[in-house]
Amino acid sequence: MSKAPKTSAGNFFEDFRLGQQIRHATPRTVTTGDVAVYNGLFGPRFAVQSSDTFARAVGYPRAPVDDLLVFHIVFGKTVPDISLNAVANLGYADCRFLKAVYPGDTLNAVSDVIGLKENSNRKTGIVYVRTRGYNQDGAEVLSYVRWVMLRKRDENAAPPGELVPELPKDIAPAKLGAACPPINTAGYDNVLAGSPHRFGDYRVGEKVDHSAGVTVEDAEHMIATRLYQNTARLHFDHFTGSQGRFGRRLIYGGHAISLARSLSFNGFANAFHVTAINGGRHVAPLFAGLTVFAWSEVLAAADIPKRNDVGALRLRTIATKDRLCADFPFRSADDYDPAVILDLDYWVLMPK
Amino acid sequence: MSKAPKTSAGNFFEDFRLGQQIRHATPRTVTTGDVAVYNGLFGPRFAVQSSDTFARAVGYPRAPVDDLLVFHIVFGKTVPDISLNAVANLGYADCRFLKAVYPGDTLNAVSDVIGLKENSNRKTGIVYVRTRGYNQDGAEVLSYVRWVMLRKRDENAAPPGELVPELPKDIAPAKLGAACPPINTAGYDNVLAGSPHRFGDYRVGEKVDHSAGVTVEDAEHMIATRLYQNTARLHFDHFTGSQGRFGRRLIYGGHAISLARSLSFNGFANAFHVTAINGGRHVAPLFAGLTVFAWSEVLAAADIPKRNDVGALRLRTIATKDRLCADFPFRSADDYDPAVILDLDYWVLMPK
Amino acid sequence: MSKAPKTSAGNFFEDFRLGQQIRHATPRTVTTGDVAVYNGLFGPRFAVQSSDTFARAVGYPRAPVDDLLVFHIVFGKTVPDISLNAVANLGYADCRFLKAVYPGDTLNAVSDVIGLKENSNRKTGIVYVRTRGYNQDGAEVLSYVRWVMLRKRDENAAPPGELVPELPKDIAPAKLGAACPPINTAGYDNVLAGSPHRFGDYRVGEKVDHSAGVTVEDAEHMIATRLYQNTARLHFDHFTGSQGRFGRRLIYGGHAISLARSLSFNGFANAFHVTAINGGRHVAPLFAGLTVFAWSEVLAAADIPKRNDVGALRLRTIATKDRLCADFPFRSADDYDPAVILDLDYWVLMPK
Repeated sequence: MSKAPKTSAGNFFEDFRLGQQIRHATPRTVTTGDVAVYNGLFGPRFAVQSSDTFARAVGYPRAPVDDLLVFHIVFGKTVPDISLNAVANLGYADCRFLKAVYPGDTLNAVSDVIGLKENSNRKTGIVYVRTRGYNQDGAEVLSYVRWVMLRKRDENAAPPGELVPELPKDIAPAKLGAACPPINTAGYDNVLAGSPHRFGDYRVGEKVDHSAGVTVEDAEHMIATRLYQNTARLHFDHFTGSQGRFGRRLIYGGHAISLARSLSFNGFANAFHVTAINGGRHVAPLFAGLTVFAWSEVLAAADIPKRNDVGALRLRTIATKDRLCADFPFRSADDYDPAVILDLDYWVLMPK
Repeated sequence: MSKAPKTSAGNFFEDFRLGQQIRHATPRTVTTGDVAVYNGLFGPRFAVQSSDTFARAVGYPRAPVDDLLVFHIVFGKTVPDISLNAVANLGYADCRFLKAVYPGDTLNAVSDVIGLKENSNRKTGIVYVRTRGYNQDGAEVLSYVRWVMLRKRDENAAPPGELVPELPKDIAPAKLGAACPPINTAGYDNVLAGSPHRFGDYRVGEKVDHSAGVTVEDAEHMIATRLYQNTARLHFDHFTGSQGRFGRRLIYGGHAISLARSLSFNGFANAFHVTAINGGRHVAPLFAGLTVFAWSEVLAAADIPKRNDVGALRLRTIATKDRLCADFPFRSADDYDPAVILDLDYWVLMPK
Repeated sequence: MSKAPKTSAGNFFEDFRLGQQIRHATPRTVTTGDVAVYNGLFGPRFAVQSSDTFARAVGYPRAPVDDLLVFHIVFGKTVPDISLNAVANLGYADCRFLKAVYPGDTLNAVSDVIGLKENSNRKTGIVYVRTRGYNQDGAEVLSYVRWVMLRKRDENAAPPGELVPELPKDIAPAKLGAACPPINTAGYDNVLAGSPHRFGDYRVGEKVDHSAGVTVEDAEHMIATRLYQNTARLHFDHFTGSQGRFGRRLIYGGHAISLARSLSFNGFANAFHVTAINGGRHVAPLFAGLTVFAWSEVLAAADIPKRNDVGALRLRTIATKDRLCADFPFRSADDYDPAVILDLDYWVLMPK
């Protein structure tokens, strides 16, 4: 009999080492079934992902899988190894979508520990990982850095190392678009896509209220989070959660990102591809029963070197709970508006 | 920068014109994933749609997509353009299913404005549209008329036209069955289909209690409605809804239709295809937490010219909330029984 | 017009006969969509079912459908004929998975009445059936016995027969593994599968706490149960249920089995296949809002004759509601711990 425990309690801060590489379980074949469940939960309407016919007309071999579904599946694999004992998911950086994923592709994930920093209280520490998602051919489909605050198993354990990596605040336009084939902009039908506004129609500083709101149910976020095979317990266990800090289940932060992305269709219907995420902050927790609204600001508009088909818009999307966004709630003085739950900084592609 | 607003607030009564044609976003490839989500939400058991093997034995190339799922997806596309500012969805007429839809087909929708009538209060008006759904080959799969009451943006705006179209009260048998291939009635296995009763076993006036009830949850109707990419806000936004007329989210009327259709299996298991909808009325709103029951009456039984394989039954299906249907609740004096939520008049096909 | 009633009220005790064979409606093509909905509801992470690539590397042609999803679909078909009037689902025996099921396969089910026993109160009786599930080629994929207590329609009806069948308490190792192709154990990647522990690493008597808990929502168990086309009314009808014994909807017993199986990944990640169920008892009802935990004990470890690739572990998995399992709650004196809801005795396969 093996001496290793059968039940994994997850890793604690002192279990990580700089340079350590972790291959994650469980490989996952993504199917049109996963896409349908995702569509039922979030209702995205971007035409490229919705229609094989539309996708082919603009240059894809068929409708690709929604970028955020790819992100959530890759992220989900890392949870049992990286963040089962997380106190907080602190941030994301340098997230780039590198290759389109299609139904039938099988995803797996590998993480490298690129930073460690014990907190001064010696009870917790921050782990930085670079996670890469791969398809069945070994091609990299996604790469991102995230950092989480983890508990130590033993407060007296020596820090496992100390290095705070330098991370880019944003991703340069030259690094965008890798997952997007050449787009036939003449074949891109604005009417079917739902908006006359293409890349050139947006200006930096423009703010758009996405207007609609969507209430979240416990069944929904649990179905979504299980679909990603994300096992973080605080999303699923009301019994334990009811005795804890929030008194209930906490919703996976990625749920708010997907809700906000779907809402953003009203204003950015032609932003058919999320090509990169510069950073994101889950400003406040989201719980079932609350209604999510969102608005976005165009932070930048960039050409991508050697591409005349698409341009990149850098967006800040702010999501709120139980708070309409017609007046673009964001920050007051030094802090976020108390209704804000998400501050996401990302690049989308639009046809020119 | 384009001057058109980025966020669509939907169309108001005075935005429509007689003869106007609207091509709707977003094309949608229907997959076995969509079918599975639909099955999880409604639990239909009609053998033709459930089994590729059964479908092939009777003459289909494979299991077709449930007729009502096709209806909901086509309907959903029209919402952002037609009914985002609807006060009420008043009725349907002349709805015919024209071609079977299979997983892999891509649906899109086009509507023609065929009628306009301002109400005497000048605050609202009624818009009549003929909506057609098409597959990726441009073949028409569905055609129906609906009329909705819309708010005016500006009460002083001139009426955009006035024409109340003549609509058929029912669809003639000669127009039925277009989406149904020739059925091999000898290959149709009554036992696997769940009932010994074929077309000839029903008589006009016969009433059938479907007996079971099903409670609706908010997560369910929202997942369904998003699956159809139907964006009507009152189904999703509890925050705004809680301050409104009903104090909560209102369930998409089509949800009750699908629930009633699934319940009707117990009594009409061999009604394998909804071929047309003569008309339908959402008599009262449905909310989460209520339990839906249903019963049906055979209004007519008709042969279809030149077809010996199937006959058509015209059914009235009544759905109720929190009310058993053993005594067939319908109308008392001039009004509906207060428990009735749906009065649907439609044609189904049954093997002879 | 046929004289048989159109609405089925289900069978009562006196409607069954020894030796009677019942072919059940509705045949069902299982798709990757069904798999995705199942994954969203239960979050299984066993690599063989999750990944086509992993499945091929170990010897399957592609990822097979989760064994319990196959069980639930076959079981669901029997409900309208066998258990619509069940007072209680008393037990299972001799359940063997005989052939792997893949997306695209069509399942149907046939039951033989193998036992009948009227209860002394003459109001109810017990019916024993052997149910077999078949694929589209007529190959048997699953076989099991279950017995249910049914009401009599007429208390004065004569007992329809009396025979209590002898049922095996457990299934011999020689009968295991029929649905499992030869496994290439060298191609089985422990890291991707999520655990270093193979067959030889477990010892009889070993207990494992699966540690995590998952709360059940009404929307979830209804979606699952409809996905299986299981029509037992007490799972769906809150209106009637609120006036009954439990005051609410009762969750399908199989829901707890699937939850426990998914939780058991943490401890038995390489138990990639449920090959047989010796018996199971739904010790107490489960309701929405409760949180399910689970632990397992290794009851036996057996070689399978002529197979060197995999071994069989006999597990008892205990699921509880609102009760952590670190101390392995099971029985106190002669009765189960009041938190226990499920006692399942089954065989899983693990690579050697």
